[in-house]
Amino acid sequence: MAEKIENLWREVRELSLGTKIDRLDSPPSPVKFLRDYVSQSKPCVISNAIAHWPALKHWSDPAYLAGALSNDLVSLHLTPNGCADAVTPVGSIGDRDDLCFASAHVEKVLFPEALRAVQSSCKGKKVGYLQQQNDCFRTEYSTVGVDCDGDISWATEAFGCSPEAVNLWIGTEHSVTSFHKDHYENLYAVVSGEKHFLLLPPTDVHRLYIEQYPAANYSYHRDTEAFKLELGEPMRDVPWCSVDPYPSPENEASERLKYPLFFNGPKPFHCTVKAGEILYLPSMWFHHVSQTPGDGGYTIAVNYWYDMQFDIKYAYFNFLQSLSYKSSSLNPILSWREDEDWESSDAEV
Amino acid sequence: MAEKIENLWREVRELSLGTKIDRLDSPPSPVKFLRDYVSQSKPCVISNAIAHWPALKHWSDPAYLAGALSNDLVSLHLTPNGCADAVTPVGSIGDRDDLCFASAHVEKVLFPEALRAVQSSCKGKKVGYLQQQNDCFRTEYSTVGVDCDGDISWATEAFGCSPEAVNLWIGTEHSVTSFHKDHYENLYAVVSGEKHFLLLPPTDVHRLYIEQYPAANYSYHRDTEAFKLELGEPMRDVPWCSVDPYPSPENEASERLKYPLFFNGPKPFHCTVKAGEILYLPSMWFHHVSQTPGDGGYTIAVNYWYDMQFDIKYAYFNFLQSLSYKSSSLNPILSWREDEDWESSDAEV
Repeated sequence: MAEKIENLWREVRELSLGTKIDRLDSPPSPVKFLRDYVSQSKPCVISNAIAHWPALKHWSDPAYLAGALSNDLVSLHLTPNGCADAVTPVGSIGDRDDLCFASAHVEKVLFPEALRAVQSSCKGKKVGYLQQQNDCFRTEYSTVGVDCDGDISWATEAFGCSPEAVNLWIGTEHSVTSFHKDHYENLYAVVSGEKHFLLLPPTDVHRLYIEQYPAANYSYHRDTEAFKLELGEPMRDVPWCSVDPYPSPENEASERLKYPLFFNGPKPFHCTVKAGEILYLPSMWFHHVSQTPGDGGYTIAVNYWYDMQFDIKYAYFNFLQSLSYKSSSLNPILSWREDEDWESSDAEV
Repeated sequence: MAEKIENLWREVRELSLGTKIDRLDSPPSPVKFLRDYVSQSKPCVISNAIAHWPALKHWSDPAYLAGALSNDLVSLHLTPNGCADAVTPVGSIGDRDDLCFASAHVEKVLFPEALRAVQSSCKGKKVGYLQQQNDCFRTEYSTVGVDCDGDISWATEAFGCSPEAVNLWIGTEHSVTSFHKDHYENLYAVVSGEKHFLLLPPTDVHRLYIEQYPAANYSYHRDTEAFKLELGEPMRDVPWCSVDPYPSPENEASERLKYPLFFNGPKPFHCTVKAGEILYLPSMWFHHVSQTPGDGGYTIAVNYWYDMQFDIKYAYFNFLQSLSYKSSSLNPILSWREDEDWESSDAEV
């Protein structure tokens, strides 16, 4: 089985994906977008995609945004380290059994204060991220909605529906989004700064080591300026990718041993999306996101989630995910290369 | 493994395909066609699709066709039983080891004579079928090319290219095309009579029992009015579907025992395509085709093959096909239901 799944990783790259994410100089027609990208579940980056948005001109200026949103309450996400919605040690020892899925402390704050919290983020102490994946751009930020388009017109025509949710993201280099997938087609427009994506196709699901982690929440205490991380009540498990593609130097060796299919398999696709560009991220693709701030000291992006089709590609994905990578229960921490040798010398394969 | 593959059969039906082939009252826009059918690998039948073709008015009249093509040499396929490109007993005993992949005797004949051979087909003796899957409509039948469109305009716009091949088919109820798949996107237009399709999605590949069969050819001897079926030289194997969905009454019990995944699994999709209608048959779908003649005593169809994308769907298909349905090598002739019980009582599953 391992060898067959590895062949799938290889074949989808050789036949379809290549080694680099496609770049288009201008928005595609709806037909081209559907034919060359959506139908094939292939990402692409589109330049000159939002040149007409006032946001592109104004939002790099913190004073403009703070002025425009001076009376608006927005959701500020706070964590000690910039890793919200990520697998995190719940105890102080941090051994395997103590990992949880940690969500940020969220508070509603007036935008100018929230923006200052983002800009003054300090890793290890307190990191602020303005984001809320519940259509926040059309609710909390409606005051500046006119600075962007309400949808991505060619995508709306292609998908045959309006976006299901539009989300705003304002953060710094301290905030990172861990590997995960969404059940949406995603058009991700960068307005200020740069976003860096690591991408893996749905075929590579076994390489992310999705496991169940107990949900936990940070709470921030202003008086002590300290975070507390506590398991939710009642306990609830969240399936999440275990792999951190950028482990700290002291953890790197152990992470590579734990997740050989990720570290020893084909490299993730990498792309940087600059201000003015849009990434089309197909549904079910795994993505890890980091960012570089622009002139205003932050990165801003607006993403449009469109409903996905639960079609044959989705059924194939579920089937693949239902299979064990291993054809036996031998040592599960063999490296990919070692494992390939092991497979090819196995008479059953 | 068996249970997981069966879940895939079920899920693709429940989430995407439903129980019936979609029918559209008029040709879809290229965007709708791509979004709702091509991208999802979903067939559909389109009515009022070729109302403007002169062929629809004239081709049911044998005199019209014989007149228009009076000087054209065309490829006439002859078999004793109407089953060309089908798994056939090569010996007279007909046991499993004696099966081959039999191709028709082909001769180039003036069209009026060829049409008479089709119309006077007699099963068990000699069945004629006018077809040649090598772009024959644009070569052998170019004289009547003006009676049809050179392409299906909305499909050409959707696929972004012209058809790779256009084929003509003139046959009677005696000619049947056995289950197979093509590596093309297929727009299949019926001009006279009716075509009956049995369809299975690519996810169901194990249910067709694709095996290697030695290629063989019929040769027809005019003097004795007899066919001879001989293995090709040098020997060459052809992978082909083993299942005949309509076995003769005397073979039915044994066929059901040999191919339980087909006969005991979900029913194939069935659709009848009438004169004036087009079937969109996605690449890699398995199809079995039979026909009912129209007024002229024959069925006529023109099909347009467009290049397919070798994308993630194709890679998933190859992966699925590489897996054995069986998770063990126990008796391979268990019925599907029995097998499901066997699986669910297996501790490993």
